[in-house]
Amino acid sequence: MDDMYIKKLLEDVKAGNIDINEATQQLKKLPYDDMGFAKIDNHRKLRKGYGEVIYCAGKTPEQNAQIFEKMLQTNSAVLGTRADEAIYEAVKARVSDAIYHEKARAITVERGEKAPLVGNIVIATGGTSDIPVAEEAAVTAEFLGNHVERLYDVGVAGIHRLLMNTDKLMDANVIIAIAGMEGALASVVAGLAACPVIAVPTSVGYGANFGGLSALLTMINSCASGIGVVNIDNGFGAGFLASMINRK
Amino acid sequence: MDDMYIKKLLEDVKAGNIDINEATQQLKKLPYDDMGFAKIDNHRKLRKGYGEVIYCAGKTPEQNAQIFEKMLQTNSAVLGTRADEAIYEAVKARVSDAIYHEKARAITVERGEKAPLVGNIVIATGGTSDIPVAEEAAVTAEFLGNHVERLYDVGVAGIHRLLMNTDKLMDANVIIAIAGMEGALASVVAGLAACPVIAVPTSVGYGANFGGLSALLTMINSCASGIGVVNIDNGFGAGFLASMINRK
Amino acid sequence: MDDMYIKKLLEDVKAGNIDINEATQQLKKLPYDDMGFAKIDNHRKLRKGYGEVIYCAGKTPEQNAQIFEKMLQTNSAVLGTRADEAIYEAVKARVSDAIYHEKARAITVERGEKAPLVGNIVIATGGTSDIPVAEEAAVTAEFLGNHVERLYDVGVAGIHRLLMNTDKLMDANVIIAIAGMEGALASVVAGLAACPVIAVPTSVGYGANFGGLSALLTMINSCASGIGVVNIDNGFGAGFLASMINRK
Amino acid sequence: MDDMYIKKLLEDVKAGNIDINEATQQLKKLPYDDMGFAKIDNHRKLRKGYGEVIYCAGKTPEQNAQIFEKMLQTNSAVLGTRADEAIYEAVKARVSDAIYHEKARAITVERGEKAPLVGNIVIATGGTSDIPVAEEAAVTAEFLGNHVERLYDVGVAGIHRLLMNTDKLMDANVIIAIAGMEGALASVVAGLAACPVIAVPTSVGYGANFGGLSALLTMINSCASGIGVVNIDNGFGAGFLASMINRK
Amino acid sequence: MDDMYIKKLLEDVKAGNIDINEATQQLKKLPYDDMGFAKIDNHRKLRKGYGEVIYCAGKTPEQNAQIFEKMLQTNSAVLGTRADEAIYEAVKARVSDAIYHEKARAITVERGEKAPLVGNIVIATGGTSDIPVAEEAAVTAEFLGNHVERLYDVGVAGIHRLLMNTDKLMDANVIIAIAGMEGALASVVAGLAACPVIAVPTSVGYGANFGGLSALLTMINSCASGIGVVNIDNGFGAGFLASMINRK
Amino acid sequence: MDDMYIKKLLEDVKAGNIDINEATQQLKKLPYDDMGFAKIDNHRKLRKGYGEVIYCAGKTPEQNAQIFEKMLQTNSAVLGTRADEAIYEAVKARVSDAIYHEKARAITVERGEKAPLVGNIVIATGGTSDIPVAEEAAVTAEFLGNHVERLYDVGVAGIHRLLMNTDKLMDANVIIAIAGMEGALASVVAGLAACPVIAVPTSVGYGANFGGLSALLTMINSCASGIGVVNIDNGFGAGFLASMINRK
Amino acid sequence: MDDMYIKKLLEDVKAGNIDINEATQQLKKLPYDDMGFAKIDNHRKLRKGYGEVIYCAGKTPEQNAQIFEKMLQTNSAVLGTRADEAIYEAVKARVSDAIYHEKARAITVERGEKAPLVGNIVIATGGTSDIPVAEEAAVTAEFLGNHVERLYDVGVAGIHRLLMNTDKLMDANVIIAIAGMEGALASVVAGLAACPVIAVPTSVGYGANFGGLSALLTMINSCASGIGVVNIDNGFGAGFLASMINRK
Amino acid sequence: MDDMYIKKLLEDVKAGNIDINEATQQLKKLPYDDMGFAKIDNHRKLRKGYGEVIYCAGKTPEQNAQIFEKMLQTNSAVLGTRADEAIYEAVKARVSDAIYHEKARAITVERGEKAPLVGNIVIATGGTSDIPVAEEAAVTAEFLGNHVERLYDVGVAGIHRLLMNTDKLMDANVIIAIAGMEGALASVVAGLAACPVIAVPTSVGYGANFGGLSALLTMINSCASGIGVVNIDNGFGAGFLASMINRK
Repeated sequence: MDDMYIKKLLEDVKAGNIDINEATQQLKKLPYDDMGFAKIDNHRKLRKGYGEVIYCAGKTPEQNAQIFEKMLQTNSAVLGTRADEAIYEAVKARVSDAIYHEKARAITVERGEKAPLVGNIVIATGGTSDIPVAEEAAVTAEFLGNHVERLYDVGVAGIHRLLMNTDKLMDANVIIAIAGMEGALASVVAGLAACPVIAVPTSVGYGANFGGLSALLTMINSCASGIGVVNIDNGFGAGFLASMINRK
Repeated sequence: MDDMYIKKLLEDVKAGNIDINEATQQLKKLPYDDMGFAKIDNHRKLRKGYGEVIYCAGKTPEQNAQIFEKMLQTNSAVLGTRADEAIYEAVKARVSDAIYHEKARAITVERGEKAPLVGNIVIATGGTSDIPVAEEAAVTAEFLGNHVERLYDVGVAGIHRLLMNTDKLMDANVIIAIAGMEGALASVVAGLAACPVIAVPTSVGYGANFGGLSALLTMINSCASGIGVVNIDNGFGAGFLASMINRK
Repeated sequence: MDDMYIKKLLEDVKAGNIDINEATQQLKKLPYDDMGFAKIDNHRKLRKGYGEVIYCAGKTPEQNAQIFEKMLQTNSAVLGTRADEAIYEAVKARVSDAIYHEKARAITVERGEKAPLVGNIVIATGGTSDIPVAEEAAVTAEFLGNHVERLYDVGVAGIHRLLMNTDKLMDANVIIAIAGMEGALASVVAGLAACPVIAVPTSVGYGANFGGLSALLTMINSCASGIGVVNIDNGFGAGFLASMINRK
Repeated sequence: MDDMYIKKLLEDVKAGNIDINEATQQLKKLPYDDMGFAKIDNHRKLRKGYGEVIYCAGKTPEQNAQIFEKMLQTNSAVLGTRADEAIYEAVKARVSDAIYHEKARAITVERGEKAPLVGNIVIATGGTSDIPVAEEAAVTAEFLGNHVERLYDVGVAGIHRLLMNTDKLMDANVIIAIAGMEGALASVVAGLAACPVIAVPTSVGYGANFGGLSALLTMINSCASGIGVVNIDNGFGAGFLASMINRK
Repeated sequence: MDDMYIKKLLEDVKAGNIDINEATQQLKKLPYDDMGFAKIDNHRKLRKGYGEVIYCAGKTPEQNAQIFEKMLQTNSAVLGTRADEAIYEAVKARVSDAIYHEKARAITVERGEKAPLVGNIVIATGGTSDIPVAEEAAVTAEFLGNHVERLYDVGVAGIHRLLMNTDKLMDANVIIAIAGMEGALASVVAGLAACPVIAVPTSVGYGANFGGLSALLTMINSCASGIGVVNIDNGFGAGFLASMINRK
Repeated sequence: MDDMYIKKLLEDVKAGNIDINEATQQLKKLPYDDMGFAKIDNHRKLRKGYGEVIYCAGKTPEQNAQIFEKMLQTNSAVLGTRADEAIYEAVKARVSDAIYHEKARAITVERGEKAPLVGNIVIATGGTSDIPVAEEAAVTAEFLGNHVERLYDVGVAGIHRLLMNTDKLMDANVIIAIAGMEGALASVVAGLAACPVIAVPTSVGYGANFGGLSALLTMINSCASGIGVVNIDNGFGAGFLASMINRK
Repeated sequence: MDDMYIKKLLEDVKAGNIDINEATQQLKKLPYDDMGFAKIDNHRKLRKGYGEVIYCAGKTPEQNAQIFEKMLQTNSAVLGTRADEAIYEAVKARVSDAIYHEKARAITVERGEKAPLVGNIVIATGGTSDIPVAEEAAVTAEFLGNHVERLYDVGVAGIHRLLMNTDKLMDANVIIAIAGMEGALASVVAGLAACPVIAVPTSVGYGANFGGLSALLTMINSCASGIGVVNIDNGFGAGFLASMINRK
Repeated sequence: MDDMYIKKLLEDVKAGNIDINEATQQLKKLPYDDMGFAKIDNHRKLRKGYGEVIYCAGKTPEQNAQIFEKMLQTNSAVLGTRADEAIYEAVKARVSDAIYHEKARAITVERGEKAPLVGNIVIATGGTSDIPVAEEAAVTAEFLGNHVERLYDVGVAGIHRLLMNTDKLMDANVIIAIAGMEGALASVVAGLAACPVIAVPTSVGYGANFGGLSALLTMINSCASGIGVVNIDNGFGAGFLASMINRK
């Protein structure tokens, strides 16, 4: 999979520097750290250009803290998402420079000098209640080196609030449109904008929103072109994908 | 239920004009025509201000034709919805002045002089494929005496087509917003307009639209106020409800 | 969008009273108050005839209190829905004349003299457990200036309770029919009444009611004509739409 | 399972009339005719009081014809449901006295003198389109020896049509309420009647009726007591259950 | 609706004993107690043979207590279902002879001499976790005067536990089959028994049981005949319907 | 992935028999035949012990015929599933010894001497309509070298038909239980048998079976242990998995 | 059902050692312990090769403790699943050698000498959050005498972690693949392995995972062959089925 | 919305070249061609960089032909999707240089010299049956000027077919991953690749795939990062979004 790695190994084999059985083993393994309850994917940075991000929910505070500590041995920056206060406390006890982003429920550790943020990602929300998801997207995108413009509470019930900001939409490299209830924001934004739109349905709403299903279906069925949809409330996924596009 | 009917009967009882057993029977019955396979609700006009409308689907062409003939004995105008060509042929064989509205899949018979159409119902569609549903609504509303303004193919993917017609929306007494796919049209219209909006999801679309469910959920969860939703593809229901509101 | 606004601006341009760049900016903006986490839509009153209503759920008590305070600078009356006691306490600390409607979970502030309530909206419920939704509708409709008649616990399991009140249904300009479980009330009411019926499914029930889905499907599929449906438990939406129709 | 059968066998064993190995085999088998593609349950009549009924759909015409022929060797009356014309033709070729009930899509063969029909089962439908399901129920119930009263097209959109027939509902031993669309008929009937109500949702309707799911959920969630629900369009199941109750 | 009531009134009218306006009013009203938040259906006993039963959930403890008190003015026995301890405490404070059935979550008040329990209703459950639903059915059926036989934990995973009790199934007038998870019990019981089976799906299980939907679908689709299904966890509904059938 | 393959290559590298660039390429490729529209997985036989099976649906008759021809160049036996008559005709034109299994909708080609069928797989169905799915499973299992015992039409509505065959269930190495409607057969079989049970829901049924969803949910939620479920109507998958278990 | 049992009884009948009535009773009963709220299936061990396992959820701690105590009178080993700490405390009070497996939420009691663990079951998880389900499977399989190899956190987002362990997959007799979110692990594992794969969807994830439905559908629809699926989060069922296959 | 357009107009107003009423009208309108049944959005090219694409399904052949003809008056290239042969025939009769892409069900007209295709979009499918969707994506992307690399039939059941093509994935600017059944391809591709992945679920499969819902849920819930999902079978949407990203 990694040509140079394989070639180097084969040259060692040819030169007799390495035993055939040993080389066979190595060809069958790529490096990952095995912590028993988790296998940290050290190879991801080579492969995808970013280190592994920790999805903190469903792991104990202590497990999360150990993973942070382990990853910081080989990474200068680590991001954890879906982290509550208890997880942050456990991480902070081991990693004193960890920062908690309360609205985004995210933990970041960034060491060394940070490069200037580049490009332009616009993050728009339908309402005030969508802000936690938007902040998860924003913190993720900023962590990955992108400039972010926040445009909150511009839902279609008062569409002039969005139309008044058309120039901001036009200046974006990529737009993240976040909305709950009926999620119509994504279609209207994609109808106006000239760049890719990442749509994030949220679970905001009640009744027949079925935990975000209504907004998800709206966005998936959009009559406007240029929209890719991520999971309900998945601010991280949107920020990550937006970064991939913006940083091209 | 109908005071005068009851009072008249009681006066006849008091005057001895009617036998008590007979009056008891009458008090227990209100008039409907029993055709065996159907009970025509002659009382509906008194009760709701309109005669019964025939939902033709699921009845044989001959059954529909008989019902038309029967109803025209006591009504000067009859509407049939969801009628295909075969049904129209059967009706026309018995009722020579029946008119077929092909796009709307509706049959109308209107005898005597028609009163001028009143008020203003705007019918907007997201796309061209929604027109059959829109025409069912339009034919229904016109049959019931309302002036109708058609505004087709103004979906949110090119939102200026709708914004350019804001004055039409502002002149309406009631708006029918018809859309398939993600159905965002209803929210945008209701955000702009000052009158009640009747939202009609359509089955237009494919994939995760699930036969119109996506548009239905969008409309039911709308963040805009002043929207009432009818069944998927139910142009008749929308036209009927719009007429009730417009004719007030 | 607002002809006079545009004409006045153009006259100023023609007269040289305003710079072209400035006018261009103004033509691209309509007024809203930007509070960072929320954009208050001051224009809505002009557009829809009512000011913005605050959906309190999903916002912090303090955010809600600030929005109330801000809106009262330009409005003499403000309504907040889905407000719990904690939100009310925060609002009251800033707005001492705020009133809490406990059953309706609503907050109202009304300053100056209130015009007499007009028209006639009948609000019927299937059972006692539907009353919170009904009260949200009633408080909304009364806040918007409508006379409301409450008709609670008239579900179809004992249909004479509803039939005994047929005259009240006949006197209504618009009826709000609220029911959970199987939600059959809306069909029966619409079968009896001569005015528009707004149907509100509620989440009351258990088992296969799926949080109100059963009642929603019932109402959307009603065999009776003249029904518009709003979201599950959406008393506010029903009250708002009823007001639009009643005040015509 | 059948005490006398077992006792008789044991007495034969004791008397040495039957070999132990043979008796063991017999105790492990109850009689059914094995036709390879079908195992006809001859024992059902003993167990349930009725012979096996043939569900014709999903079997070839020839398979159905063979099963009819086989069953008539040991039964004087056989019923087949969900049979189209092609199936009837194949059956008639082998069983010349087979009768086809077109509306009910059922085939009956009844030999010998038929006992008088007993009791009183009322079958009510919401509309004309529900009649095929109603006829399947009626033919089934009559085949099983019950008197049936048909009350078609009494849906709640014109509720007086039902109320006018309250005395019929009061005379029933059991009522079968059949309705599509929103299926509210079952609740209203059960609210009025004093006997068990079997509710049959039908697939009649369109849009959000989802092939009968809406009516099914309505009936399962009914606020009225005394209702048992069968599958969508399952007229046979309703007729069978009604017969069990009526013939007590 | 009640012939004698109407005839008596008409005779009074004829005799001049009653004013026509007054009689008109009476003909339009049947008695119910209006408590504002509830309309107690006094007529139900005449109509359905049983008094109204209180569904306690969704009402406040105090509302429930008031309804119990009110109903006991005209009834000698009252049943409340879905009652938690807090509701029972409130009822007991007003009605000292109220009895709480903990497993069934039901409250009964029975005054005067109780008639002997009649007939035979067998209540079978698939597992131990289904017992609360079974007890709600049992308490309801016993309250309504029926003899009940409990047969708990006879699910199909160890089918001989059920087969060993075939004679009990054979002795029943009606069987209530209660099961969660896949709910196969109802089909097997109906395949064995000769009487009507009322199937109650329960929410017992996890994962893809979707709160009882899996068992509901199983029971609705049963290949065995003679089954009527009630709502998920609806022990009361099953006990009520079983009583109607058993007491014939 | 294949140790010997890699070791041999490395030995060639060491011996200088192969160029390093070439070896690098080979290490990055495993053999498959690329036909443009399909990539035939020649490696599967090494990996899984069976050759690739052709899922014929969704491919044109000609595409299927070409794939058969291609695969027979390197395989002595090929199986195609979900094949209609048209596909079979196209295959037969190129592969004259292809055999069509009509009930199973499968095509087999088997060249050379066939080894005796081993072990014992019992395939049980709830009804006659499930036979096409059962035959797909049977043909698959026999193609893969397994002895199959067919036990059709033993559904739980007449459970003695199944109980009478308990010894067959006891003799099986693995049982495939196939049923539509409510799918209870799998639970009962697994409750009786001592071997693994593969459950196949079928789309047989109507109404609330939702194309097999009801049977799928039943089988997934089974209260009996030892059941693995495959997709609706997936006879091939069941036969394949059964073969894996039986041939151990 | 058990030939020798029946033959022995018949021989006793023939020899006059047993009364015919008594023998009839015995033939109709197989042994189970009736505890009122539960019927313990003592016969299961004979039938299925394993004793009954206690599903602790939905039973009170005291009920669970009594069942453990009862079963240990006739079994040397008992397993309880879905047991929280409170249940364990109650069991331990009666059964002092009960052991609690916290991650697996399981209780085991094993008396006498344990046979060596045999065969090889590989349990793979997609992530760290799936470990509780995996441990339930592992504890179950080990309790039933199988050797288990754990392979956790090898999800497809970093697929080399799985590919590096291909040899472990190749050494397995059966693999349990456990994953939430999109559940793709099962397809990839089955594509690589040569043995049966038991797929366990988990409820891990958020948004449109709908409590595990997404992973369940993925696994049921897998394009890879040789997969049987169990219920969401059903570690026990997977461990049990794997044991059946592994111990062949 | 378009600054220069507005400024120019204002300058004309200032210079008196245009009447104020007229300018007011123009400011309220942006150009679109109104064909009655369709409003062609001429402005889209300015706004989004591409002309309007015709979604042919749901429009009559003649309507489609007229729209093609109209659009070609102002565009040098037009694309129509979801076009069957009949539509193509109608278009060709009016536009003789229209080309039909049969596998993609698309019509293109391209006049003048075509610029060289740029960048690199890889389109991968799980199987052969997904090719029509893939071709719709490919034709769309090529029409919009992108270089496309096709990589068909690389599903995860034989994962080495995908792994062998890792270098192609690494060379892509954006990848479109298309799969039906369980749709696991998208996760595996996104786990391997370093660029954005657009996931397209298809309706390929049967049973519990529910018309593509299973693949949609898989892709939305993917554990891999960098994925945006479009509607089921929406090859056009994927090709369009990929073009937006690739052409940056």
